[in-house]
Amino acid sequence: MTKNINSQEEAVLHQAKISRRNMLKTAGVGGVGVLLGATGLGGLLTIKEGKANSTGKKDIIPFYGNHQGGITTKTQNHVYFVSLDVTTSKKEEVVKLFKDWTIAAALLSEGKPVGDLSSNEFLPPKDTGEAEGLSASNLTITFGVGPSLFVKDNQDRFGLKQKQPNELVDLPKFPLDALEEAWTGGDLCIQACADDLQVAFHAVRNLIRIARGKAILRWAQTGFQRTKQADPGQGTPRNLFGFKDGTINPDVKNEKQLNEHVWVQPGDGPNWLVNGSYLVVRRIQMFIEVWDRTTLKEQEKTFGRYRDNGAPLGQKDEFESLDLKQKNDQGEFYIPVDSHTRLSHGDGSQRILRRAYSYSDGMDAKTGSFDAGLLFLCFQRTPSKQFIPIQERLAKMDKLNEYISHRGSAIFACLPGVNQGGYIGETLFN
Amino acid sequence: MTKNINSQEEAVLHQAKISRRNMLKTAGVGGVGVLLGATGLGGLLTIKEGKANSTGKKDIIPFYGNHQGGITTKTQNHVYFVSLDVTTSKKEEVVKLFKDWTIAAALLSEGKPVGDLSSNEFLPPKDTGEAEGLSASNLTITFGVGPSLFVKDNQDRFGLKQKQPNELVDLPKFPLDALEEAWTGGDLCIQACADDLQVAFHAVRNLIRIARGKAILRWAQTGFQRTKQADPGQGTPRNLFGFKDGTINPDVKNEKQLNEHVWVQPGDGPNWLVNGSYLVVRRIQMFIEVWDRTTLKEQEKTFGRYRDNGAPLGQKDEFESLDLKQKNDQGEFYIPVDSHTRLSHGDGSQRILRRAYSYSDGMDAKTGSFDAGLLFLCFQRTPSKQFIPIQERLAKMDKLNEYISHRGSAIFACLPGVNQGGYIGETLFN
Ligand code: HEM
Ligand code: HEM
Repeated sequence: MTKNINSQEEAVLHQAKISRRNMLKTAGVGGVGVLLGATGLGGLLTIKEGKANSTGKKDIIPFYGNHQGGITTKTQNHVYFVSLDVTTSKKEEVVKLFKDWTIAAALLSEGKPVGDLSSNEFLPPKDTGEAEGLSASNLTITFGVGPSLFVKDNQDRFGLKQKQPNELVDLPKFPLDALEEAWTGGDLCIQACADDLQVAFHAVRNLIRIARGKAILRWAQTGFQRTKQADPGQGTPRNLFGFKDGTINPDVKNEKQLNEHVWVQPGDGPNWLVNGSYLVVRRIQMFIEVWDRTTLKEQEKTFGRYRDNGAPLGQKDEFESLDLKQKNDQGEFYIPVDSHTRLSHGDGSQRILRRAYSYSDGMDAKTGSFDAGLLFLCFQRTPSKQFIPIQERLAKMDKLNEYISHRGSAIFACLPGVNQGGYIGETLFN
Repeated sequence: MTKNINSQEEAVLHQAKISRRNMLKTAGVGGVGVLLGATGLGGLLTIKEGKANSTGKKDIIPFYGNHQGGITTKTQNHVYFVSLDVTTSKKEEVVKLFKDWTIAAALLSEGKPVGDLSSNEFLPPKDTGEAEGLSASNLTITFGVGPSLFVKDNQDRFGLKQKQPNELVDLPKFPLDALEEAWTGGDLCIQACADDLQVAFHAVRNLIRIARGKAILRWAQTGFQRTKQADPGQGTPRNLFGFKDGTINPDVKNEKQLNEHVWVQPGDGPNWLVNGSYLVVRRIQMFIEVWDRTTLKEQEKTFGRYRDNGAPLGQKDEFESLDLKQKNDQGEFYIPVDSHTRLSHGDGSQRILRRAYSYSDGMDAKTGSFDAGLLFLCFQRTPSKQFIPIQERLAKMDKLNEYISHRGSAIFACLPGVNQGGYIGETLFN
């Protein structure tokens, strides 16, 4: 609570500095001391239900439930992904943060503001307002915790060390990794996905605001896909290399597959993560100018699929199961040995739920080319048996490596969902 | 033409290097020499009509016409803005570029690829493919030329010096400007707006690809607004400070107003720009964390409008004309003397067509806060009588300056539109 008052004080001092004269005039009170007194009562960050701003129920994805949204949810048009570092050293403040976040996220998911849109003379409005009047836009908010929340610089920061899963450790360094601090790691993550970027931004911004004094932004990355409106047929979206991306994925309607590949199961590790999932994030730059100078044939051999319809080479239909044995007249495999499809598929037993978005961050100042690529997000039950062995194969000999570079990386345990009344993280912190 | 062949050569050499073995095998030919010979015939960048990929006519904005699109066009959901520098020293190559761009832009505006999606053994596909299957998404492409296209380092680069309008000169340095090279200036610009970011990106990428050997990327900036889907009522969009932004603007349906404030008229300057318009771009960072710590009252006094409904302070309706004389009980103007609305309005005679988008570029590494703000785009007939005097007033005493910082700036003359058969820029280059 001390911290909370501190940040309110700071906020009021700031606003007092820049607008004291007006405020005092209007409020008709005698000095900053009185203002501070007033804020002690108000509770800047107390979250309560605000005025609804949803235009309908049709684009609302329920926040509460057995699992968090944004994992098996049909991919929305945009993602706003942020990694945060915890700045408080008190466990109860982290708990308070997750409680406040839970309530706020539930409101946001319904297209509601995180608190009153109006405000009194002394305090900033509780909601930042830019999503006022907008629909929920299928917003999902997914929270995760990184390895460094448990142990950092050999410190058991919050007494959670014995709860850290063996699977929740920094990823190994893969050959060719060119990671930068600026997009790597983090104690916590928030993945906000929505069909409207302003709605996703609003969510993240207000959640970070609530974290004031407890956690700060570490890195942020937006991503996009073709919109549903531009592709009413809802084909598999294409990545920035022009290929259909997301064809082979566990079936999100098939509970058995999800329990096998995506949701952490009892006995996998500490029980607090059961019904949660591990998220691996990779910010992968794609050298589109280089790609654009290669032939279609070369491109298709790189992926092992046709660009036009997404079918595996030598086959007809996008969704046909791969025939990895089929050879052409020259006795070569249709799907080359160093192709991305063959290598990522492996023997087919390691499956991850990919939920990637494209990104485009203006120009890469170093090279003068686009800084564009894939914000690769994938969910899984056991990283050491899924993402890691797949990426080991890819890093070793994927033909795609000539055209991409891994620039950022992080791993998070995405917490199980909660029912109304509970809070995200309760199984971990209790 | 020489240059063109050079870039083809380069492309082929590159692809030969990385995939020669495969290519030769497949093609069954004897060496790189043959490949080069082949490309000499093909014409990598010859644009011709490709297979349609539009799903319908409803979201197509015609490319040809008296004026370019993207100026009076209803603001789309996304913008992809790029500034380019010309690298060739030959005027005929610049002319060729604009001719190729015109044909490509007309195709793109109809949701079509810029050339065959398939390719032969030797050449990259003409279109990069990521918009295949997507609708036109109301794409508009707007081309402009900057002061440095005419004269750079005191050089009359293309013999156009005597055609440079007095109005097309670098903007003066305004007080508080904190411009960075990374978002400033440029010989040419392309503003691609669409309801789908992937469609806008695809357009810009393919246009830049066509420019290979003639012009290169200087800087790029994406922007967004709330989508039409999230706001079916189509109210004025809100900026990242939560306020309605775009209320007062010339009426794009009113030809008289447009001729007065937006379109360059005969006699204004050189005739080649008649029916064109000057674009001023400012990349303005908004310190949202600071803003979020101020009271609603303070925020409303900063703009001189209510956040909730956008009405001027002391008034009821968003679209009421400003009452700048009205005072409150304390004898103060409702719309403060240092408020953004009062200062930008001035005496109401200087009007610009604002067409701004929000941007959000992850974290500002220097401060740890969001790098977010406004990509301010405005069109006008005479910058010296419109943007410049307005910005002089704002820079001097706008209360908003406590929360923003101008980080990038450029000015371009957006060329008049053309009819089918003509090319963008023909009035300038002929
Ligand atoms: C920029 C980087 C990448 C691009 C452009 C890319 C693109 C693709 C494409 C086009 C496909 C074929 C269509 C499909 O099944 O979706 C594919 C498949 C796949 N990719 Fe990637 N990918 C990238 C990185 C990765 C990474 C880092 C991993 C994991 C380590 C990965 C794992 C997979 C898997 C598991 C499949 C499905 C394989 C199968 O069972 O058929 N990809 N990818
Ligand atoms: C981040 C920077 C800026 C923000 C957040 C902002 C926001 C706003 C808002 C909320 C309004 C009131 C509603 C409306 O009429 O749209 C407004 C009006 C206006 N702004 Fe800005 N603005 C910014 C920068 C600028 C700049 C750089 C200029 C030009 C130099 C400008 C020119 C205007 C004009 C001409 C009006 C309409 C004034 C009237 O006639 O009522 N703004 N702006």
